[in-house]
Amino acid sequence: MAAGYQVPDVPALVDQAREGRPRAVARLISLVESGAPQLREVMAALAPLTGNAYVVGLTGSPGVGKSTTTSALVTAYRRAGRRVGVLAVDPSSPFSGGALLGDRIRMSDHASDPGVYIRSMATRGHLGGLAWAAPQAVRVLDAAGCEVILVETVGVGQSEVEIAAQADTSVVLLAPGMGDGIQAAKAGILEIGDVFVVNKADRDGADATVRELGHMLGLGEARRPGDWRPPVVRTVAARAEGVDEVVAALEKHRAWMEERGVLADRRRRRAAGEVETIALTALRARIGDLRGDQRLGALAERVARGELDPYAAADDLVAGVTGGA
Amino acid sequence: MAAGYQVPDVPALVDQAREGRPRAVARLISLVESGAPQLREVMAALAPLTGNAYVVGLTGSPGVGKSTTTSALVTAYRRAGRRVGVLAVDPSSPFSGGALLGDRIRMSDHASDPGVYIRSMATRGHLGGLAWAAPQAVRVLDAAGCEVILVETVGVGQSEVEIAAQADTSVVLLAPGMGDGIQAAKAGILEIGDVFVVNKADRDGADATVRELGHMLGLGEARRPGDWRPPVVRTVAARAEGVDEVVAALEKHRAWMEERGVLADRRRRRAAGEVETIALTALRARIGDLRGDQRLGALAERVARGELDPYAAADDLVAGVTGGA
Repeated sequence: MAAGYQVPDVPALVDQAREGRPRAVARLISLVESGAPQLREVMAALAPLTGNAYVVGLTGSPGVGKSTTTSALVTAYRRAGRRVGVLAVDPSSPFSGGALLGDRIRMSDHASDPGVYIRSMATRGHLGGLAWAAPQAVRVLDAAGCEVILVETVGVGQSEVEIAAQADTSVVLLAPGMGDGIQAAKAGILEIGDVFVVNKADRDGADATVRELGHMLGLGEARRPGDWRPPVVRTVAARAEGVDEVVAALEKHRAWMEERGVLADRRRRRAAGEVETIALTALRARIGDLRGDQRLGALAERVARGELDPYAAADDLVAGVTGGA
Repeated sequence: MAAGYQVPDVPALVDQAREGRPRAVARLISLVESGAPQLREVMAALAPLTGNAYVVGLTGSPGVGKSTTTSALVTAYRRAGRRVGVLAVDPSSPFSGGALLGDRIRMSDHASDPGVYIRSMATRGHLGGLAWAAPQAVRVLDAAGCEVILVETVGVGQSEVEIAAQADTSVVLLAPGMGDGIQAAKAGILEIGDVFVVNKADRDGADATVRELGHMLGLGEARRPGDWRPPVVRTVAARAEGVDEVVAALEKHRAWMEERGVLADRRRRRAAGEVETIALTALRARIGDLRGDQRLGALAERVARGELDPYAAADDLVAGVTGGA
């Protein structure tokens, strides 16, 4: 079966993905992840099929039980008859593409369910790549008919927080006795949470974590009437306890957003971020091309010698990119 | 004394900074940090005066004793008659500009020494700003006649690691009993260290930390003859123990780099990074201008509706920036 590289038939793949065929979905995500030459063709073909999925971001420090919670949410949504996509973004993983072993084990309940598509993305140490590829993979799952897409990220880096924040609804997970959780929350995760989950709520310290979290959320700016007040839900995801309450909180947030036009707003903002990232990547690549031309190298040499200041050098570089002066 | 904003007389400030007058240095760094209209004029005036300072980056997790070590290094360099600049970059600090209280206390030994200039930079949550402003502040200190510039960063974020890596010599600090230190090291700090310091070496576990570190350094790729082998120095910075050994290691590294042309190489690379960052910031600002024009907003709306794919939208945005199509 050692066939050569075959140019993918994008329209056929898109048709197959729409029918929910997992191999076609996998192939499309791989094309998107790898920045294949067909990337633009894929994105153009997918565009009219997107905009139907409800995208939920889940983030939290390692050890809070993100994968277990995600898996329990998948079960709950499947019981309600929804098609579900899972995108697990793991910046620390050395694996590129494909599913991670840990996820595979935790997600094995769903492995034979054709209504669930699970994909892990590693970032290969390239944070820009992560911010760039995740929304595109969400588009593939959306176009493939997933009604709910769960995007699971480790909430430690700025980039992961940004991905979670780009969801329609952001779920922040904490666990008792993890000072880290609250620390991470302090570092910016708190602001992005629409729903908070204290998992492993049967453990000592759960009350304290819920209390501390409530306190920190209360410390935020005063809310106006009608503002969303992020609920704190207790779960023991390993035993599926509290998971229906999480789903209820998600649906409530979704309804609240739809009522007020917040959902459309968020999606516009998400699209804007996506477009801007792609545009900046393109401009950066043009600068990279100039580096290949040794234009940047020559400028840097002059800056290092004090013959030129870095702003004047940057002007030169920008002019090379924009075709100016 | 509530005077209105005065347009700074850049040539006069630069002259005063060259004479080592701290208020002029402070003013120039503030201009650079704030992105004042005179920024380009400042950088152009400074360029011919730069390239003389030896820039040492110090990084490590919170609690390893970075400020204490920096202060002890300042004392050692001052004893040798060198003019010293200190730039403390603290991404977590809510203070903008000016010195941090903690640093002020630790650095108070040097407060009345005209041969030392100390400056703290906060990042105000804007990481791009940090990467951008730090090298410019280094230029000011360099032009002001600092022979050694110590750039102290908290080695937790990618951006801080990058700043440390941009130094002529990067010092990575660890302390015994801090699993975090080694963890951070694993996460990329290890690769950037030219000199490793195990501070608080009188504490339990110092031997284990030195051993573990030596082990990890040994696990790196095999070195060719003549390659730099990063030394591990033990210090108790609070009692100035081992600090002369750190200075000796720094001077040895500097000599090694000069012999092999590595120093010039690093400075060219630093300048290239600086120029590229400024150029990208300028291009990003142009995209931001388009956002102001609602061009991005209109494109995002169409992407959110599925009428346009994000790549086609990005093409449109890039064309707007580069004057193309």
